[in-house]
Amino acid sequence: MTVISTNPATGVERTLELDDTPRDEVLAIARLAKDNAVDFAERSLAWRSDLLRAMADELEGDVEHLVVAAMDETALPEARLRGELARTSFQMRFFAEVVLDGSFLAASIDEAMASPMGPLPDLRRVRTPVGPVAIFGSSNFPFAFSVPGGDTASALAAGCPVLIKAHPAHPATSAATFAALARAARRLDAPAHTLSIVFGFEAGAALVDAPDVAAVGFTGSLSAGRALWARANARDTPIAFYGELGSANPLVVTTAAARERAAQIGTDAAGSVILGAGQFCTKPGLLFVPAGESGDTLVHELVRALSTANEFTMLSAGIADNFRRSALAFEREGRVAVLVGREWGDEARTSARLYEVDAMQFVTESTLHTECFGPTAIVVRYDSSAQLRTALLAAEPALTFTLHAADEDPDARWLLDLGAQRAGRVLMNGFPTGVGVSWSMHHGGPWPSTTAPWATSVGAAAIERWLRPVTFQSVPEALLPPALQSANPLSIPRRVNGHLEVPH
Amino acid sequence: MTVISTNPATGVERTLELDDTPRDEVLAIARLAKDNAVDFAERSLAWRSDLLRAMADELEGDVEHLVVAAMDETALPEARLRGELARTSFQMRFFAEVVLDGSFLAASIDEAMASPMGPLPDLRRVRTPVGPVAIFGSSNFPFAFSVPGGDTASALAAGCPVLIKAHPAHPATSAATFAALARAARRLDAPAHTLSIVFGFEAGAALVDAPDVAAVGFTGSLSAGRALWARANARDTPIAFYGELGSANPLVVTTAAARERAAQIGTDAAGSVILGAGQFCTKPGLLFVPAGESGDTLVHELVRALSTANEFTMLSAGIADNFRRSALAFEREGRVAVLVGREWGDEARTSARLYEVDAMQFVTESTLHTECFGPTAIVVRYDSSAQLRTALLAAEPALTFTLHAADEDPDARWLLDLGAQRAGRVLMNGFPTGVGVSWSMHHGGPWPSTTAPWATSVGAAAIERWLRPVTFQSVPEALLPPALQSANPLSIPRRVNGHLEVPH
Repeated sequence: MTVISTNPATGVERTLELDDTPRDEVLAIARLAKDNAVDFAERSLAWRSDLLRAMADELEGDVEHLVVAAMDETALPEARLRGELARTSFQMRFFAEVVLDGSFLAASIDEAMASPMGPLPDLRRVRTPVGPVAIFGSSNFPFAFSVPGGDTASALAAGCPVLIKAHPAHPATSAATFAALARAARRLDAPAHTLSIVFGFEAGAALVDAPDVAAVGFTGSLSAGRALWARANARDTPIAFYGELGSANPLVVTTAAARERAAQIGTDAAGSVILGAGQFCTKPGLLFVPAGESGDTLVHELVRALSTANEFTMLSAGIADNFRRSALAFEREGRVAVLVGREWGDEARTSARLYEVDAMQFVTESTLHTECFGPTAIVVRYDSSAQLRTALLAAEPALTFTLHAADEDPDARWLLDLGAQRAGRVLMNGFPTGVGVSWSMHHGGPWPSTTAPWATSVGAAAIERWLRPVTFQSVPEALLPPALQSANPLSIPRRVNGHLEVPH
Repeated sequence: MTVISTNPATGVERTLELDDTPRDEVLAIARLAKDNAVDFAERSLAWRSDLLRAMADELEGDVEHLVVAAMDETALPEARLRGELARTSFQMRFFAEVVLDGSFLAASIDEAMASPMGPLPDLRRVRTPVGPVAIFGSSNFPFAFSVPGGDTASALAAGCPVLIKAHPAHPATSAATFAALARAARRLDAPAHTLSIVFGFEAGAALVDAPDVAAVGFTGSLSAGRALWARANARDTPIAFYGELGSANPLVVTTAAARERAAQIGTDAAGSVILGAGQFCTKPGLLFVPAGESGDTLVHELVRALSTANEFTMLSAGIADNFRRSALAFEREGRVAVLVGREWGDEARTSARLYEVDAMQFVTESTLHTECFGPTAIVVRYDSSAQLRTALLAAEPALTFTLHAADEDPDARWLLDLGAQRAGRVLMNGFPTGVGVSWSMHHGGPWPSTTAPWATSVGAAAIERWLRPVTFQSVPEALLPPALQSANPLSIPRRVNGHLEVPH
């Protein structure tokens, strides 16, 4: 099948000079990637770092073309796409730093010694790349979580060849960004098949099945992610599947915070709910607001902001359909009050919606506990801390948990504790829709927000998904990988005989 | 059902004053463990470390009783059991050190700053305990991989309550070691249900199903492990399942090494094959030996050592049955030559067996690629490096890969590279059956040797399985966990604004 590129704003379809990748070809590409994996893995950290920087350069060198391609396919505004592309290059450079730092190797050396258990041999442990990694690009970030995104950057940083499944919502953008990365790979004389791209639904399934693929990274919906996760587990040789599946992202406003700044929180929360037409996996979808006057003020501001917001063009007509279907399920099965709900748009057009329900009803309506991807939120009104706690425990675990509290707020402590139990990122007096690329970011969370709660798809630790430790026992110096040689030729932090040593 | 303790040497059965734990009770215990999990998690690192040391003390204070109990149920010799118990206490103390070191928290602080992407908020990441952990004790290590073993020690070190499924081959030993650990927990006033034990097959299944259990650690057979892994994945909320399932553990003797010291390698390899009646998951089960005279000498020594070895009593009649069944499959389906094969014993009695096959036949006989748990090995004779490589790639990935090579051996480099691709520990000129407890140990490997190749069940990194990161964003100092407070009150290594800082 030929690949079609659709402009969601106009509905115009364009046939690309690209075909869906047949299953056999996917398997063959995976085999070639595996054949070249050791060559790639053995390139120096400095070289790997240069490759990532060259990729950032190529992306930056092609900004105008890439942004136009993405605007055409995603209906996202130009400023957002320029920002996202800048973030994507920044992320490539960030992983270049992570590579050079070398901590990700977790190198540890225990020299041979006597122990209460008798003599211990020389033991040296280092993380090694797992092999070819399959990456599924997301719909909602055509750059930052797609072909040149964090999964690709972190897998290359780990030393793994990458096979990317282009998202069908932006195939031309995928092809163009892939071309930029491929130019960098050629410029640095990377091994063949360090980077590959495939198109089409069947190609995605084939990637997960391919015997030569060692792990999968996925950002997308719970249903697609869970199906592919099951597929990865059903292989003869199951492989790790790191799925970031989105979440409802509770946001709690304490009674004290509402009393202090209800209107401001309402206005700002509305902005976070509709940012990017609500198409963020970190969109705050559940707003826990106290009953009573301050809470009413907050809700009033939410309603005002959302009912006056412009219409949105979503990323695709399919995503808009899903949004309408999920929102209608809230209305029909969840017995919510509709606070904002204009006419439904056609095709990819939608508008913001806001619902309200009381805490005890929220607990019993399981329809309301799952993510609705789009510009909408449910306000959950609570009467007491006990009610709030019960309602929060009924909501599904999530990527993020947001708390708006006052200074010396008596509810802050228990809410933060509860948030940390049920989310991967806990934030105060802000909004979860920004996900900074840094050493300390964690973008992950308990099931169902991800398939592997220990893993992150953003931040330095994203590299850990693509590594597997190996211990070398009594291996002579000359045969050890550089990371484990006694002289520390890579100048990386290591644990030596139990003590962390950081080079200056 | 009442729990039965069987002496494998005599076949005598003894009824214990213990019943199989009913499913409802297992679920209730898990709920109680969860209810107390936060209390346990919030105890200080110093307290947690004291708890582990107190457990080591209690085990050591009860050595005579515990060793007698284990001798009765496992038929393992006294010296081995004393050594294993000493190792088990050592391991508890080792994890006490790992806790105090604090690196396992992977604490990272990024202070708020400007970035090319606009202002970044204050972000602080730390690993937190996942919650109650279910541990399945192994048959072959009644102490070191059972109730008081590395899984329990590492999970407690991580701050997770532990629910242990006692292995049916040594229930009395399990109860006695549990009592020792429970005394330590009481002495340190640990929260209720920090540690629980359950008995019976159904109780094990219930543990994996229990909604309040957050992760599972398992050491045992591929079939049982894979079934429980599938069960953990089939839950409404799937949980991580860390199964260490054993492996065939290839051992390669290069042509040069055989020429240099064939007889010595043969004698020593025989000792490793029958150590503990071959009941180690690291037993070298596949011995790759060159064709020709030196190889013949090596095989001759193997045959001599194994055919004169005493009979063995295996851990249970069931394990001996499985051994006979697997070995007979080699003989009937694998078309091997039987080099050592005396009469089969009855019940738990067995004797060593040795098989031989040529490399190309090995490749085609998949029966021969899997572990046979017991005192046996297959000698695979190869004619050339190319044949050796093909045969090694046909063998399943494994926990260990052992290389016997000469100095300046032309085959050492490629064999080590291949070993590191296909095993979690690569060792030279030694034997894999010893697994030292240290910072640099990795006891894990690619599927099917484990269900999670990144994880280890021995060594400091074993703690990583029971942790999940949380990032705190813009959370005021007073509400941060101690590990993330700016003053570093725990005095642990941390990454601050990208730089590793190690306190002195």
